[in-house]
Amino acid sequence: MRALVKESQGPGIVLRDVPVPACGPSDALIKVRHAGVCGTDLHIWEWDSWASARLKPPVTVGHEFAGIITELGREAERAGLLSVGDAVTAEGHVVCGHCLQCRLGDAHLCRRTQIIGVDRNGAFADFIAMPVSNVMKLDGIPTEIGAIMDPMGNAVHTVLEARVPGSTVLVLGCGPIGCFAVGVARAAGASLVIASDYNAKRLDLVRAMGAQVTLNPGSDDVVARVHELTSGDGVDLVCEMSGHPSGHAQALAAVRIGGRVNLLGTPNRTTEVDFARDIIFKGVTLYGVTGRKMYETWHQMQRFLRAGQLDPRPVITHRFPLERIADAIQVIKDGQAGKVILEVCA
Amino acid sequence: MRALVKESQGPGIVLRDVPVPACGPSDALIKVRHAGVCGTDLHIWEWDSWASARLKPPVTVGHEFAGIITELGREAERAGLLSVGDAVTAEGHVVCGHCLQCRLGDAHLCRRTQIIGVDRNGAFADFIAMPVSNVMKLDGIPTEIGAIMDPMGNAVHTVLEARVPGSTVLVLGCGPIGCFAVGVARAAGASLVIASDYNAKRLDLVRAMGAQVTLNPGSDDVVARVHELTSGDGVDLVCEMSGHPSGHAQALAAVRIGGRVNLLGTPNRTTEVDFARDIIFKGVTLYGVTGRKMYETWHQMQRFLRAGQLDPRPVITHRFPLERIADAIQVIKDGQAGKVILEVCA
Amino acid sequence: MRALVKESQGPGIVLRDVPVPACGPSDALIKVRHAGVCGTDLHIWEWDSWASARLKPPVTVGHEFAGIITELGREAERAGLLSVGDAVTAEGHVVCGHCLQCRLGDAHLCRRTQIIGVDRNGAFADFIAMPVSNVMKLDGIPTEIGAIMDPMGNAVHTVLEARVPGSTVLVLGCGPIGCFAVGVARAAGASLVIASDYNAKRLDLVRAMGAQVTLNPGSDDVVARVHELTSGDGVDLVCEMSGHPSGHAQALAAVRIGGRVNLLGTPNRTTEVDFARDIIFKGVTLYGVTGRKMYETWHQMQRFLRAGQLDPRPVITHRFPLERIADAIQVIKDGQAGKVILEVCA
Amino acid sequence: MRALVKESQGPGIVLRDVPVPACGPSDALIKVRHAGVCGTDLHIWEWDSWASARLKPPVTVGHEFAGIITELGREAERAGLLSVGDAVTAEGHVVCGHCLQCRLGDAHLCRRTQIIGVDRNGAFADFIAMPVSNVMKLDGIPTEIGAIMDPMGNAVHTVLEARVPGSTVLVLGCGPIGCFAVGVARAAGASLVIASDYNAKRLDLVRAMGAQVTLNPGSDDVVARVHELTSGDGVDLVCEMSGHPSGHAQALAAVRIGGRVNLLGTPNRTTEVDFARDIIFKGVTLYGVTGRKMYETWHQMQRFLRAGQLDPRPVITHRFPLERIADAIQVIKDGQAGKVILEVCA
Repeated sequence: MRALVKESQGPGIVLRDVPVPACGPSDALIKVRHAGVCGTDLHIWEWDSWASARLKPPVTVGHEFAGIITELGREAERAGLLSVGDAVTAEGHVVCGHCLQCRLGDAHLCRRTQIIGVDRNGAFADFIAMPVSNVMKLDGIPTEIGAIMDPMGNAVHTVLEARVPGSTVLVLGCGPIGCFAVGVARAAGASLVIASDYNAKRLDLVRAMGAQVTLNPGSDDVVARVHELTSGDGVDLVCEMSGHPSGHAQALAAVRIGGRVNLLGTPNRTTEVDFARDIIFKGVTLYGVTGRKMYETWHQMQRFLRAGQLDPRPVITHRFPLERIADAIQVIKDGQAGKVILEVCA
Repeated sequence: MRALVKESQGPGIVLRDVPVPACGPSDALIKVRHAGVCGTDLHIWEWDSWASARLKPPVTVGHEFAGIITELGREAERAGLLSVGDAVTAEGHVVCGHCLQCRLGDAHLCRRTQIIGVDRNGAFADFIAMPVSNVMKLDGIPTEIGAIMDPMGNAVHTVLEARVPGSTVLVLGCGPIGCFAVGVARAAGASLVIASDYNAKRLDLVRAMGAQVTLNPGSDDVVARVHELTSGDGVDLVCEMSGHPSGHAQALAAVRIGGRVNLLGTPNRTTEVDFARDIIFKGVTLYGVTGRKMYETWHQMQRFLRAGQLDPRPVITHRFPLERIADAIQVIKDGQAGKVILEVCA
Repeated sequence: MRALVKESQGPGIVLRDVPVPACGPSDALIKVRHAGVCGTDLHIWEWDSWASARLKPPVTVGHEFAGIITELGREAERAGLLSVGDAVTAEGHVVCGHCLQCRLGDAHLCRRTQIIGVDRNGAFADFIAMPVSNVMKLDGIPTEIGAIMDPMGNAVHTVLEARVPGSTVLVLGCGPIGCFAVGVARAAGASLVIASDYNAKRLDLVRAMGAQVTLNPGSDDVVARVHELTSGDGVDLVCEMSGHPSGHAQALAAVRIGGRVNLLGTPNRTTEVDFARDIIFKGVTLYGVTGRKMYETWHQMQRFLRAGQLDPRPVITHRFPLERIADAIQVIKDGQAGKVILEVCA
Repeated sequence: MRALVKESQGPGIVLRDVPVPACGPSDALIKVRHAGVCGTDLHIWEWDSWASARLKPPVTVGHEFAGIITELGREAERAGLLSVGDAVTAEGHVVCGHCLQCRLGDAHLCRRTQIIGVDRNGAFADFIAMPVSNVMKLDGIPTEIGAIMDPMGNAVHTVLEARVPGSTVLVLGCGPIGCFAVGVARAAGASLVIASDYNAKRLDLVRAMGAQVTLNPGSDDVVARVHELTSGDGVDLVCEMSGHPSGHAQALAAVRIGGRVNLLGTPNRTTEVDFARDIIFKGVTLYGVTGRKMYETWHQMQRFLRAGQLDPRPVITHRFPLERIADAIQVIKDGQAGKVILEVCA
């Protein structure tokens, strides 16, 4: 079958012909229809310090996907919960189930996580084998949307780890996950959603997702504007998606006394924090977001999608066939893309 | 009456004869029996940058106290909930009741808080007038202990803002509040309480309060020892009471994946934080602690004290009469004191 | 001034000329513009067993209102948080602030609550004096809507004491509070809101408030239909507003395994409960709703109203001047009314 | 191997020689050292209406056990998390992982649960095969205690589904799980634990587990005494373990306004509930307890046991070899037993 493979140490990803993966006793073999290209894939392509420290080539890349079950392992079949022909997506973190975090219901923080497309073969291929525990039926959600439920789930996790109904929310950084976060906050009953980014194209996307106010730090004083819009209080919840120290500073200045900052954007350097002024005297809560809660996040997202409360399609800006991965990576590097989809199999 | 007064801009606190405060319609007038001396009083004595920016002399200092009601205002009397002769203590934050934080049940974060002994006349005096809403009956708790329920409440707030039963807890910084935090964690069913401080005297106090393991960063690798003691996991909860950037670094390194860091110690400078490594990828929650929850914290503390689950007396190391405030301040500066008590009236 | 007074033991309420209430030091005197008529007022009119056991005539009735501040007590004025001329509403439970419930943040359950219009003089009058702690500025919300924030707050409390975003909700009983509950659930991001009542007029109102499915127990098998609409799971949350044993039975049968039943409707007789089958084996949570959380509920409601997420006006079906209280009571008895408003002063 | 088997419809359980179970790819084969006899086993022995409706003989009974791993399936071995020779216990609910409840982290409420010893072959045998996901290492906890972690876990679940530190707790019904609940409440920092039962022997056991007050409904007015002991407030938490309508009535009368009733005892008939008086006006929360939270409950229990905070051994009153099951059942029927252990293999 076709697969996009990180073949060796160094930049690039190549299209290769590889064997169809074996379907273990507790696995589903899934024919991939759509896959999402993520910033992580860009790191892998560019072979940055994170990628070179983590990946052991050769490995098939890609962790966002949806497709059709074509085979079930013996144990999986006996369980009778999934069927050949089911349209499905899957959580890409394959967890141990036995560590402290898994036992406490925080499997998204499993110490032995194997991420598909990073630590084990991934989804930019005609087929992928997944443990059935990770597989979820789409039940009417199109596979193109199913393919981006992984990053959308990051947004759901970030936003819903707070009491959203009636709240004021600031989303810092309007890449695809920031765009999804805006849609999720609106769906969850936020009273005011403000979004900020330097990139005008992204501000267009985030408006399409329901942001009531958009700010551009290039021309707006973000913190001052947030206080104006909230009667001087600041916002109840900041979703920090930028991963920049300036985003952290804005987050801590824009959050209200007693408010909450949920951090998803991963910075590549440290930030100076004034703990006394910005966290202790303000009684603020910070929360670091990794992955998706397994599987509460997925359930909430499915509800929003099926009820039509959340429509992520405005965020999808580009679609490429599998072999045009270089073009997909390029549009992301150019900063003009929202979500980029690979159309894998018909 | 006698009162310890910050009379003018500049160091020192002086004993003065001042009028007994008027008892407003919703106030209780309280004859002070015992008062606690706090690090805040040291800042006021020394007239540091915080004190000079905040205080408007002349002001009677002191915010930790207990005593006996000698008069009730008309409205207070009509309510019939308190009586002349009741032994009481009081929450020292006089709040507005109308701001967003007050309305949300976070009165400890009230934007218009007036703190006794800082923003209005305090408790190092023969009498203090307090709004009855802030006054709580001791019902058998001795006034010497009642006088330190304010800082003990800081510890209760810090520790109980987590699920403590069965948890592992690290207390960084063993001043009086750190010592109380150890006692509270044990009372609340923690399975393992580790405490760390450079000061050997304080480590003695914290052992008396129930710390099962004490560490001295001067000779112990705190983070390594914590991991050894927790099967490599790190602790569920860190209570950061040191207010030093090195404490923040240890807190973030010693907390387990998915754990919680509650921050009370107030640093006087910024800390470099690696948000990606220490908060986001670890799924950690940070919480800034101000004051005491009004009045959930007080209720929990009263329960612990009355049931004999928490005995703060080992932390009390010095007692002085009101006029020896200079000596009280000095033993705190010398770093050899636990909690220092002023014996005000018989 | 004019006031509607329960003058003596026995049915009826009469219009009387009474003195304007004194404005105590911590009070606001409020000129009443609009007031809401409640089922409780009907009980008082009819002098049923509850009313005769609780009220001590003479008492001015009415507990739902909004108006304009015309005077502030000395302490209230000094606080500077409210001004003469402010349009306001107020929480009608005047609480002690000292009981266990008040101290734990559950003032809505205060053991010494004095309810206006029941235990002390109420709002069906030209003026009412209220403690300023209970008074909230409308800040743009019309007084007609402000006048019904008390019952709307019951609905907010009932619905938001659950995680609503993405959830499925069943509202049993579509009186005014049931109608509000539907609007609140939609505003808070519920994915599916089902409402049930025998009364066709009420089902019209609840559809106007956003119910996606309405059921009539006279012709629909409510429990069976709920299961059909939820893939056989049952709903995440039932809001029981009917107060009938049959509502309790439907609630427990319609809630999903692991779901939640919030009970507001107050029955006048007991219900047979199969604890094993309906609560224990299903892992269900039941919660009894009294009043409004003070003041979290009010804050959330203000946010929804100001953001335009919740519009209660379709529920208002009748408006009468103060002197036509008998007509107001009659339309409620006739069962054809939604919310009935008294227009008190211009 | 030896196994205690419900061989056919009708009373009794018989010792049979049966094949050692096959160890599937994701299973561990465990040599059983100790097993606990439960009220459920009594129902199965007596073949009551529940048992005859649920069991499909022949089935090996027994669901509480601990032992030593003697074999691991291929997938289980590859995971490398367990080893032959490990002393282990196991959660007896084998769940689907895919239903709504499993996906929401409520696997203890899985709609497709297979309980060992009820729906599939159980643990009163020389060997049992268990999915490794259900298996937990004892790491120093003796197998005799490991064998009763299933019912102890019911108690942990019941008690810790509340904020216990500093709280007042009433345990109604002092069978083994009630006895464990008392120990758990004390370990978790409850300030006062009251226990009630008609059986003097059980009151002895519960005192040994730390109950500070014991009541006998035969001679004590339980509700009146609870109010006396709690300054008239009632208790914060009731753990209803009796399963009798009289227990429900006492629970609802003894719980404080705003308190919580966690229900575990499973009644065999309905209870009349006054929802208005006992739940709605009191703002009470009820919670139905099934099984153990998977696996948060197990983690908390392991912490308590390893730290020595909870010692369940006083509750163990009888030990029998496997073949004396009839005697084990008889001592339970006689009402003089605490926990009864089967000693299976050396």
